[in-house]
Amino acid sequence: MYYFDHAATSFPKPKRVIDSVVTTMEMHGANPGRGGHSLSRQASELVLQTRQKIAAFFHAPSEEHVWFYPNATFALNQAIIGFPFSNGDEVVTTHFEHNSVLRPLYAMEKQAGIIIRFAGGKTGEETAASVVEAINDKTKFVVINHASNVTGEIVPLTSISEKAKSVGAILCVDASQTAGTISINMERDGIDLLACPGHKGLLGPQGTGILLSKHDYHLKPMTYGGTGHSSESKDQPIMWPERYEAGTLNTPAIAGLGAGIDELEYLGGTEAIYQHEVQLVDYFLREIANVNVSLVGSDTTEGRLAVVSFAFAELSSQECAIILDQHYQIAVRAGLHCAPKLHEWFGSINKGLVRVSFGPYTTMNDVRVLIQAIKEIGASF
Amino acid sequence: MYYFDHAATSFPKPKRVIDSVVTTMEMHGANPGRGGHSLSRQASELVLQTRQKIAAFFHAPSEEHVWFYPNATFALNQAIIGFPFSNGDEVVTTHFEHNSVLRPLYAMEKQAGIIIRFAGGKTGEETAASVVEAINDKTKFVVINHASNVTGEIVPLTSISEKAKSVGAILCVDASQTAGTISINMERDGIDLLACPGHKGLLGPQGTGILLSKHDYHLKPMTYGGTGHSSESKDQPIMWPERYEAGTLNTPAIAGLGAGIDELEYLGGTEAIYQHEVQLVDYFLREIANVNVSLVGSDTTEGRLAVVSFAFAELSSQECAIILDQHYQIAVRAGLHCAPKLHEWFGSINKGLVRVSFGPYTTMNDVRVLIQAIKEIGASF
Repeated sequence: MYYFDHAATSFPKPKRVIDSVVTTMEMHGANPGRGGHSLSRQASELVLQTRQKIAAFFHAPSEEHVWFYPNATFALNQAIIGFPFSNGDEVVTTHFEHNSVLRPLYAMEKQAGIIIRFAGGKTGEETAASVVEAINDKTKFVVINHASNVTGEIVPLTSISEKAKSVGAILCVDASQTAGTISINMERDGIDLLACPGHKGLLGPQGTGILLSKHDYHLKPMTYGGTGHSSESKDQPIMWPERYEAGTLNTPAIAGLGAGIDELEYLGGTEAIYQHEVQLVDYFLREIANVNVSLVGSDTTEGRLAVVSFAFAELSSQECAIILDQHYQIAVRAGLHCAPKLHEWFGSINKGLVRVSFGPYTTMNDVRVLIQAIKEIGASF
Repeated sequence: MYYFDHAATSFPKPKRVIDSVVTTMEMHGANPGRGGHSLSRQASELVLQTRQKIAAFFHAPSEEHVWFYPNATFALNQAIIGFPFSNGDEVVTTHFEHNSVLRPLYAMEKQAGIIIRFAGGKTGEETAASVVEAINDKTKFVVINHASNVTGEIVPLTSISEKAKSVGAILCVDASQTAGTISINMERDGIDLLACPGHKGLLGPQGTGILLSKHDYHLKPMTYGGTGHSSESKDQPIMWPERYEAGTLNTPAIAGLGAGIDELEYLGGTEAIYQHEVQLVDYFLREIANVNVSLVGSDTTEGRLAVVSFAFAELSSQECAIILDQHYQIAVRAGLHCAPKLHEWFGSINKGLVRVSFGPYTTMNDVRVLIQAIKEIGASF
């Protein structure tokens, strides 16, 4: 199987990640923060180590500012549904958002009476400029997809965070596609709330998502429950991260996520991974230029991730994915990729798009096989 | 290490559970329901298989009525915070609830204006009678800890579910301690909403929790996001389970949970496990009767789980746990066990209790070692 669905989840998982999950289950499988015994303390220690690695990786103020969730969707819900919106508060976002941002916003539109302002352009630069333009004195919250999971366009954050700060708005960044692939520094980039999955660019296991909160934005916890201490309080404890993490944590997966960060460093860090992926995309874009497909987004490597979406005029995206899967053992994703507004923008809402996404273990040979298959499909009409 | 903290999480995890997690990560590690390729379909198939096993295990109407979450806390929050309460709605619950029920109820008291009625007695039978007494025409929702995580007392459900049904109230059961240990049949027991972890009695990995919904109670989803289809809709899809499961599922852990159910069957099923554990508790209770400790709850095996809590007059529960851990390599849990109202009831709120809980792999020799240690501690004063 040639795997080009890294934007959905990284695969294969690094050996050290799997080993870490197994060792944790076999040796330290107790409930972290819940027992008065050494197995429980070992579990707590593993969770703490990953928290510290994540805080350092994204330049969060401390490990207490790192909260673990089952996926990025939960993290984004905690940031958006948990935000103390008042009726009439304005939110600026973009056409490129994933449903994990759009649907919480629509829910808050109904439940809290927020007003959603959509910005966006064709490129990441245009999108940033459009967002800056849309932010005004009434803006309370800005939520931005750091890079599109369909076009791979990266949205530069500097001008957005400066404008948001100038009007006192909170900047929430969905780094689902960028965490682990491009450098993210909460301090430098002016990010207030940073959400990402642990199982994509960070190379960890499924079952992991993270929200990082730079300051206290008075978020309402999404879930209420046991926290292992302050049990006599009727509310969640004030202390972080406990306030925002109720119930048993996923110790093995969180330990595995720590090993994912180690693997990233072993591979040379985000910059080295980015360079590797860009090289592959560069080759892919040059070669696909000779095939009669329509690309969405940029046809260069400038300001983009290793995510490319395209369509054949003659085939639905689903049909194309089935042919790639069954005839070529090539895994891609077809459809709307949970980003419906982008497809309205690009006119691809009916047929969807075929998306290919590359990861740190994708080889040039894999991309050659992919290109050859796309060319053969193109030649068959 | 002698492990007596099964009420927090089962340990060791069965080999087949760990193997299943590893195989899933190595071989089928794609995003379930998110790709147009065979790896993604394999991941979906694994999730479906576990859903079907869980539905059959608890006699839910179908696998679509089984929703996967990171822990039981999330499942209980989905049931309680997600319930369409109106101002003034009455809820009946007990003094024995865990904070994963109490704190969501307190949150709804503040946010939705519900009125909480506490019932409870010393034994499970008394508690059931008290709950039946407390349910009246104004009761909209009844939420019950199926067995206390502190005293191990089992609350029989039949009279409660009959009374709840007679007034049109919804019965939500927290089976955190009972799922996998005593027989639960949603149909026979009249359970409307059933929440449990996957990593305790069901022997699965951490990172798993389940909510089963018998009918449609118009729960509001806890999280909004991508569902892999119906992406063009602004709301969560109407379809189950997608409506109540946003974002990437934890495929390896869910596959592992399926293996946990297989292990349960391999061990002879819940009845065999219960008989094994009761035998250990019986021995433990007889022996501890000779030590100068105060037990909370029943001192017989009648209507209880293999969970026993006690206190030395001379030691705080934390001190006792530290001695057991450091001098005897015995893992127990000390403190309030996230069940503060129970400790108010039993007068143990200040010093907490030492809790020992047995699992399917606990041996008679383990219990002998534990008893010997407790006797030695008792003899040291």
